[in-house]
Amino acid sequence: MNRPEPIERMIESLRKLPGIGPKMAERMSYYMLNARPGEISEIINSITEARESIKVCSVCFNMSEHDPCRFCSDASRESEVLCVVETPQDLLAISHVRNYNGMYFVLGGALSPLDGVGPDEIRSKELINRLKKDKIKELIVATDADSKGETTALFLAEQTKPLGIKVTRLGYGLPFGGDLEYADEITLERALEGRREML
Amino acid sequence: MNRPEPIERMIESLRKLPGIGPKMAERMSYYMLNARPGEISEIINSITEARESIKVCSVCFNMSEHDPCRFCSDASRESEVLCVVETPQDLLAISHVRNYNGMYFVLGGALSPLDGVGPDEIRSKELINRLKKDKIKELIVATDADSKGETTALFLAEQTKPLGIKVTRLGYGLPFGGDLEYADEITLERALEGRREML
Repeated sequence: MNRPEPIERMIESLRKLPGIGPKMAERMSYYMLNARPGEISEIINSITEARESIKVCSVCFNMSEHDPCRFCSDASRESEVLCVVETPQDLLAISHVRNYNGMYFVLGGALSPLDGVGPDEIRSKELINRLKKDKIKELIVATDADSKGETTALFLAEQTKPLGIKVTRLGYGLPFGGDLEYADEITLERALEGRREML
Repeated sequence: MNRPEPIERMIESLRKLPGIGPKMAERMSYYMLNARPGEISEIINSITEARESIKVCSVCFNMSEHDPCRFCSDASRESEVLCVVETPQDLLAISHVRNYNGMYFVLGGALSPLDGVGPDEIRSKELINRLKKDKIKELIVATDADSKGETTALFLAEQTKPLGIKVTRLGYGLPFGGDLEYADEITLERALEGRREML
């Protein structure tokens, strides 16, 4: 005997969310079946409102209520240093490091040939165009410290070096295999200070 | 620097779901911001459809598309044996045990005086009425094997014994502190076979 079909469908749709396994999806589903109507509409409204009001910044591809975002429209930042990250969450982590005052670029992922993610699936061309257009002098590669992030960093360095741009990689402090987004501020600050030139 | 306000609100609303911590809510939020519109409407529709079509069975308080539910409307089941569980998920777990063919009753929780959950917050009166009305001969108490479930079992036994009804408790096989809903079928089957009379 199984669950009623509508409950099964709710569990299946929630399971598609990242990090949600079958038991978690089941628990969330039964919770939502029993919740007050106001609680459910609050969740649904917060999702639809965020999706409506959040834009992708046309300069750095960060997620923001404004285009360009607050970083790209801030004239006091160093315009010739660009930090490239995989995701908006990674950008947020770097933005908490007080001694970084340059610009940003969100790749939208990392190279992963086995998953079919090649240079065209991340914003590598857009990055090269940005580097040329804004006369960037240093590119800080802040991709994750895992194998995809390292592959991506090497690829970006190879693409950027011929342009005569200094390419550095977050270095000292970042533990191997770690996800940048979960690093604490001190680790990130040390990684920024200990960055080393690539190639 | 913090996230844009609409993203913060989405994260806050998702954090209210059971078992969802701040990092998980953040991950789900960014995923939902980037997801295709169809994917989001599928999730939202599955929630609203389930909430609209799922009723509470007026006999056993299970969640079902029909009232009475498929167990309560099944005339081939033993009508004089009643298994009382805390939640619909627990009922589903018991329903997978092949040698149980009696009826069900969902309490809707367990006694927890520290959390303000007393006999009036669970369906203890409704259970007593059901026991009398349907001339139940045996009540199988299948509450969780944790302290709340044990307290509830003892309370129900004390209420039921004066009615001349045999009260048994799931016994052998259930690990102490375990949540019934996560038990495997064999453990549940042994627990049913090893049930012992209370008081």
